Amino acid sequence: MTAPADFRQRVTSWIERLHEETTAFFSELDRGGTFREDQWARAGGGGGFTRVLAGGATYEKAGVNRSAVEGVLEPGFAQRIGAHNVGMESLAFFVTGMSVVAHPRSPMVPTVHLNVRYFEITNESGQRVDAWFGGGTDLTPTYPFPEDAVHFHRTLKSVCGRHHPEFYPRFKMWCDHYFVNAHRDEERRGVGGIFFDHLRAGEGGLDLTQLLAFVQSVGSSLPLAYGPVVEQRRGISFGERERHFQLVRRGRYAEFNLVHDRGTLFGLQTGARIESVLMSLPPVAAWDYSPVYPADSFEAELLRMLEPRGWAE
Amino acid sequence: MTAPADFRQRVTSWIERLHEETTAFFSELDRGGTFREDQWARAGGGGGFTRVLAGGATYEKAGVNRSAVEGVLEPGFAQRIGAHNVGMESLAFFVTGMSVVAHPRSPMVPTVHLNVRYFEITNESGQRVDAWFGGGTDLTPTYPFPEDAVHFHRTLKSVCGRHHPEFYPRFKMWCDHYFVNAHRDEERRGVGGIFFDHLRAGEGGLDLTQLLAFVQSVGSSLPLAYGPVVEQRRGISFGERERHFQLVRRGRYAEFNLVHDRGTLFGLQTGARIESVLMSLPPVAAWDYSPVYPADSFEAELLRMLEPRGWAE
Repeated sequence: MTAPADFRQRVTSWIERLHEETTAFFSELDRGGTFREDQWARAGGGGGFTRVLAGGATYEKAGVNRSAVEGVLEPGFAQRIGAHNVGMESLAFFVTGMSVVAHPRSPMVPTVHLNVRYFEITNESGQRVDAWFGGGTDLTPTYPFPEDAVHFHRTLKSVCGRHHPEFYPRFKMWCDHYFVNAHRDEERRGVGGIFFDHLRAGEGGLDLTQLLAFVQSVGSSLPLAYGPVVEQRRGISFGERERHFQLVRRGRYAEFNLVHDRGTLFGLQTGARIESVLMSLPPVAAWDYSPVYPADSFEAELLRMLEPRGWAE
Repeated sequence: MTAPADFRQRVTSWIERLHEETTAFFSELDRGGTFREDQWARAGGGGGFTRVLAGGATYEKAGVNRSAVEGVLEPGFAQRIGAHNVGMESLAFFVTGMSVVAHPRSPMVPTVHLNVRYFEITNESGQRVDAWFGGGTDLTPTYPFPEDAVHFHRTLKSVCGRHHPEFYPRFKMWCDHYFVNAHRDEERRGVGGIFFDHLRAGEGGLDLTQLLAFVQSVGSSLPLAYGPVVEQRRGISFGERERHFQLVRRGRYAEFNLVHDRGTLFGLQTGARIESVLMSLPPVAAWDYSPVYPADSFEAELLRMLEPRGWAE
């Protein structure tokens, strides 16, 4: 068993490497654009690096964030994040993570999101009181290619299956219940993927080191799960109608992130750098009033694809 | 003093007339577009009429809503809306109102919003237990014409001044504190106007009938406060840069409505027809990552205009 300080350092170094790898992956995938980087510091301790590629060849906007933040654990904050073993003593929190959101130009290419994070609570002696991993990745197509959802989910099932046979089915269902515009009659943001939180030592019989290995696999899954989808769809031509529907779907993406997403609200409330929190918002989005799509239209087909189903079966 | 049932009927009839007047005003202002109407019913009682003009000559999207809704007053709901005199007895609520949001095509023409509403709580004998008015109107320019803010505010000052000398200064300040993207370092949505809520009998020494007269004046203020601004700005030419900045400002409009606006959240939570609640969202909006504007640019000038000031002085 690794000493707590070493484990934290190991996670932190991995997040730094993953940030580099993810930037490199999307730079190559874009075939032309480059990321700019902004460093930011948080008043209470820690900070992050936000990289954004805007106006690229493939991506209209793509953001890759990493942060490592620490501070005093206030009781209300402890409750909101679901911390365990929190009594009267003075505690500190530490959280590090990486997230990416990539909005392609072409409506034929799906939007993708991935996030991995590690949360730790320590007491005054520096002992670990609680620690867990969270994260996930999900796909948001704006044109209906069911094969893309199948490929994405099958790859994730295989990635998860290397660590625990129950992880894919459990985290797939968690994802289906998370990325939901509840106010839109339970409409899903996309075709899902996996989502998990509060994975503590003992989860599925795995220790923290084994859970780290799982989360590392998830963090590195996009080249296999998402890369081939982009290569397959990037050359397909489209018209104004497909582009407009893409903007309408992006409106729903913005609605989810601003109204429901815990990570976004958490960022808005805790004083993280606002442009880094909101880099996930689409470059351009549209809201049509009460659109109606014929049952045999591609728009209606896309909406049917959003209903959760067993894509990997 | 009018009997409560007669007063409610009087307010309801006025809202219906105001809905017609407002539709007629924006139809004429648009010079070409027509509104479509959707009627909706609420499961718990009542319903509304939503009129939307999309793709007009002057307006990219304009919506004029009216609704009259009633039902059982649940205790949690009573607390959220700030009801008075609410004890253990079984109570009913009634609310009727009209709202308009108009997003022009041209970035030279400001967006405008107006809302007026009447809220009433009655007991089992049909007696009025509490009643109040709320509403306001605010202007959101996307290009800096300070004269437009001056005209809008001076007109509102004059409208308010006919009813009470303190109403304009109080409700102007209330507005400055309401339409704020708190998460954006307190950035205002626009140049404000007036905003008020919970105006009960006795407010400023006025009875409910006198308050109705005030709210009626506010409801009919746009032809004077806003119409001339549109006529003055509609012919001005603009380029891609002005259009793009308009979309970015609309992104902030969407953020305010989805993250902060009480009326929108109220609608999302209480099961009103979602397309009617969200008709206020802009037709198209953009999110740039961390934009920087030179101090002498029109964008920077617009942002400076958003800082609250005494436009009517």
